[in-house]
Amino acid sequence: MITEDLQKQIDFVHEIDKLKYIQRMTCLFNSERNENDAEHSWHLCMMALVLAPQSNEKLDMLKVLKMLLIHDVVEIDAGDTFLFDTTKNHTNTEEELKAAQRIFGMLPDDQAKELIAIWEEFESAETAEAKFAKAIDRLAPMMQNATNNGGTWSQHNVPYDTVIEKKKRIKDGSETLWDYAKSLVDGYYGK
Amino acid sequence: MITEDLQKQIDFVHEIDKLKYIQRMTCLFNSERNENDAEHSWHLCMMALVLAPQSNEKLDMLKVLKMLLIHDVVEIDAGDTFLFDTTKNHTNTEEELKAAQRIFGMLPDDQAKELIAIWEEFESAETAEAKFAKAIDRLAPMMQNATNNGGTWSQHNVPYDTVIEKKKRIKDGSETLWDYAKSLVDGYYGK
Repeated sequence: MITEDLQKQIDFVHEIDKLKYIQRMTCLFNSERNENDAEHSWHLCMMALVLAPQSNEKLDMLKVLKMLLIHDVVEIDAGDTFLFDTTKNHTNTEEELKAAQRIFGMLPDDQAKELIAIWEEFESAETAEAKFAKAIDRLAPMMQNATNNGGTWSQHNVPYDTVIEKKKRIKDGSETLWDYAKSLVDGYYGK
Repeated sequence: MITEDLQKQIDFVHEIDKLKYIQRMTCLFNSERNENDAEHSWHLCMMALVLAPQSNEKLDMLKVLKMLLIHDVVEIDAGDTFLFDTTKNHTNTEEELKAAQRIFGMLPDDQAKELIAIWEEFESAETAEAKFAKAIDRLAPMMQNATNNGGTWSQHNVPYDTVIEKKKRIKDGSETLWDYAKSLVDGYYGK
């Protein structure tokens, strides 16, 4: 017998399959194949798992993983926003909030509330977990670009100062990861 | 300054990017596009997160997520083994153990030991977390096949009894998910 809650959970599992079709601007390492949001989310979780010792603060790892698993699910409705897009603000838009409410809202109430709260906590980037998860999300495309002749930095002629300005908040999550991230930018721009 | 540990972690992050190239036999929902191991691993984590209330036993969710994040990493070296393959045993092979030692062994010692132990715990399918994680891993392709005119069941002419025999251990992790999984098989085979 399939309960009402189980049916909702199953419908949600079907719905989020769509994340595998959302293409990001960045490509896999040493590759011209664009990454999709689902494999990106997996890679961020793995990064968080092994890079956790680099965090500035002690972390609740279960919360960090939940954040990274769900952080892009809203893009099923709202699409991927490119960090260096000058016409669209890369912040928590009304469109993304609506998407969170629709998609997580497919789940039983308590689960919907929990996941919306975790997504909002990630977007606010105030807690230790959110700062570290955001740092990982910011770092990954930098590592990819560094192996792809500058990748999106090169394709969109993004100036050095803009990259640094957009990325320096990695420091809020991890000083050591920021040092590493900056070395990647400096390396590509010949600084 | 990049410490030796950080360098090992970065090298590991690069290495596991290869999981995005490992194709599975199963396809996305209502699709002819094969799934890769990275997006599969993400989807399993999301399933575990929302289906956890269906578990027979109380779970350490952080451990379940770690298991599902890393469970297929060995396939970077060992390749994907098809469950209904009659020539190759779908169990913890020597080849997979070597792969685990090589890939997780790239990390600092304490992290390598932890991930190898979690992978072995998953493979042994004895703890509550491993039984539930295995149930989710067994369930996902059944849900996919059910939306793809039988998918791999149909393509490989797998008999009803074989599917039931190979999948019934879902029950060890969740009685309710097994009821649901069986209903998918019964539906496709007209039972």
